[in-house]
Amino acid sequence: MASYTSIHLAARPTPGPITKDLFDVRTQEIPEIGPGEILVKQTHMSLDPAMIGWMSPDPESYIPPVGIGDIMRSSGVGTVVASHHPDFVVEDQVRGMLGWSEYLVSQGEGLSKLRPELDAETVLSVFALPGLTATQGLYGFGDPKPGETIVVSGAAGSVGSLVGQLAKADGLHVIGVAGDEEKCQWIKEELGFDGAINYKTDDIEARLAELAPNGVDIYFENTGGPVQQHVFDRMNAHGRIVVCGMIADYTSQQPAPGPNWIPLIKKRITIRGFAMPDHFDDVPALLDKLTPYVMAGKIKYRTHILHGLESSIDGLNLFFTGENRGKLIVKL
Amino acid sequence: MASYTSIHLAARPTPGPITKDLFDVRTQEIPEIGPGEILVKQTHMSLDPAMIGWMSPDPESYIPPVGIGDIMRSSGVGTVVASHHPDFVVEDQVRGMLGWSEYLVSQGEGLSKLRPELDAETVLSVFALPGLTATQGLYGFGDPKPGETIVVSGAAGSVGSLVGQLAKADGLHVIGVAGDEEKCQWIKEELGFDGAINYKTDDIEARLAELAPNGVDIYFENTGGPVQQHVFDRMNAHGRIVVCGMIADYTSQQPAPGPNWIPLIKKRITIRGFAMPDHFDDVPALLDKLTPYVMAGKIKYRTHILHGLESSIDGLNLFFTGENRGKLIVKL
Repeated sequence: MASYTSIHLAARPTPGPITKDLFDVRTQEIPEIGPGEILVKQTHMSLDPAMIGWMSPDPESYIPPVGIGDIMRSSGVGTVVASHHPDFVVEDQVRGMLGWSEYLVSQGEGLSKLRPELDAETVLSVFALPGLTATQGLYGFGDPKPGETIVVSGAAGSVGSLVGQLAKADGLHVIGVAGDEEKCQWIKEELGFDGAINYKTDDIEARLAELAPNGVDIYFENTGGPVQQHVFDRMNAHGRIVVCGMIADYTSQQPAPGPNWIPLIKKRITIRGFAMPDHFDDVPALLDKLTPYVMAGKIKYRTHILHGLESSIDGLNLFFTGENRGKLIVKL
Repeated sequence: MASYTSIHLAARPTPGPITKDLFDVRTQEIPEIGPGEILVKQTHMSLDPAMIGWMSPDPESYIPPVGIGDIMRSSGVGTVVASHHPDFVVEDQVRGMLGWSEYLVSQGEGLSKLRPELDAETVLSVFALPGLTATQGLYGFGDPKPGETIVVSGAAGSVGSLVGQLAKADGLHVIGVAGDEEKCQWIKEELGFDGAINYKTDDIEARLAELAPNGVDIYFENTGGPVQQHVFDRMNAHGRIVVCGMIADYTSQQPAPGPNWIPLIKKRITIRGFAMPDHFDDVPALLDKLTPYVMAGKIKYRTHILHGLESSIDGLNLFFTGENRGKLIVKL
C-alpha cells in the first residue's frame, strides 16, 4: 500500500516564531474508500495569516481552534483520484478546507468543483479567503467612493494587494504600506497604487503628509504596528477604519496600545473589526462583486510557492518576517 | 436704559481648568428691536461638556469653534419680552442656541417655541442635547437588544443617565460607571440601573466580572479614562462601542493611549464615534423615539442649578471634577 503524510497540531504556540515541535508529522497508509466517499489528492495548499489564530484557543474567536492531535486547518485544491460518489469523478478538481494532508477521504461536504477556466493558483490567491476578505472588508465596511483616499497596510500581502487594486479600479487614491523596497515597487509599478510607504525606512508621518495631502478617508488595516497611529492621526471626518489583520502584534507578549479615542468623536470615525467566517453566507454575493474586476483584468496577483507538505510549518513564519513575495501556496 | 451682560470668548483654553481670563464679561444697553425682530430674555442656560471642545479650534471638529470675541455658544430657554415678529408674541417661551447672554435680539431663525406641557428644565435636561445624544447614540449605533448587557460610563451625567434608563426600559442589563458613591446610589436606587461601579474606589475589573458575568455587548463611552480598557477587555463578540465623550482625556496634555486593536478582529467589534451636529436632520425622528419613554414615566432626571450668568465660567469645571449632581443649568 502507498503511504501519505499529514501534519497534526501537537501543542499551542507561544509568542515568537512557529517551531516544528508544535506539530506532529504522521505517515500512514492511504485508505480504501467506502460507499459515497471520494479520495482527494491535494495539489495546492493555501497558507494564510489567520492560521496563526486558529492554532490557539480563544473563547471569543470567530472559529474554534484546531484541536490538539487534529490535522492543521487550511484551504486547498486537490484532484479526485478515486470516487464512489455520484457527484464526483476521477480527475475532478475540488477546493475546500482540505487541511495539512497529502490525501483526504471525504463524503463531499464542503467541497466544490473548480470552474474549468480557473486554475488552482488563481482560485487560492483571488477567489478564496484573500479575495473574499478584501471584497467584504472594502465594500461591506469601507464604503469606498471615487476620489477618496485609502491607505492599505500589508499592501503587498494577499488581502492588501487586492484591496488596493479594487479601490484603484473604483477611482480612489490608493496608498500602500509595505515593509521593503521590492514590495513598494511592486505595488506601484505592477499593481498601479498611487503611492507606497516603506514603514521600515521611510519617515511615515512625512510620507503620509506628502502622499495623502487631503487626509485619509479609509484605512484598511492588515498589520498593526507603528504605522497605525500615523494613519489614524491623518483620518478625515467620517473616516472608516477596517481592521482585518494585526499580524505585527500577534507575536508580542504585550501588544502595543492603540490610539486614544478622542479623534473618534471629533472626526466621527467608525472602526470595524471583522473576520470572514461571519460572512460565509454572503460568499455568492461577494464573488459576484469580485469576479467582474478579475474578468476585466483589473486584478493582478503573484504567488510565493513552497514545496512539500512540511514546508508549511516554517512557511507560517513568513507572515511574521514579511519575507513572502505574494500569496503563499504549498505545492504538494 | 436698562443694561444686560454677555460673556465673550477672549482666549483659547490650555489643558487644565477653565479660568476667568479666558472670557470677557461685557455690559451693554438692551437694544431697541427693529422690524421683524424679537427680544428674548434668557431664563435657563444649558452647560454641556461639548462646550469645552467648542472653545478650541480644530480643523477636523464637527462644528466651528467659537470665535475670539464672540459670545460663548450654548443652548437655552428664554422668554420673548418684545416682538415685532409675526410668529412670536410677548411671553412666548423659546429655545435655541441663545449663547452666554442675558438678552438676545433675534429674527427668529433657529428658535422654536416650547410645547406648553414642558418646562424649561425638562426641555434642557431631556429634550435638548442630552436626550438627542442619548437617543442617537443608543439607537443609531448601539443596536440594543433585550437581554444584552450595556455598560455606560459617565452614568450619572446628563447623557449617560438617559442612555441607561432607555436601555433599562428596553430590557437590557444596565451597568453604570460613576465617580462617587452618591452617584452610584442615585443611578441604582432612583434610575433603576442593575449595577454601579465607582471607578475611583472599586476594583473595576473585579466589579465588572461580578456585574457583567456574561460579558458586555454595548459600551457607551462618555468619559474615557481608566475604565475604558477594562470594559474593552470584557466585550462580547459582535459588541458595539459608542464613543460619545472623552471628558477625562480633554484636559490631559498627552491623552492616554487606547486599547490594542487585536480584539476588534477576534470579537468583530464596531467602534463608532459620533457628535450630534451630524444628526440634526434626524431630530424629529429622535424626538419621536424618545418622547414615549418620557411620557411613560421611564425617564427621570435631576438638575444641578447654578445662578447668574457668570457662574457658567467656573461651572464648566464641574465636568472635569465630576462634582455636578445632574444636568447643569444656569438660571438667569
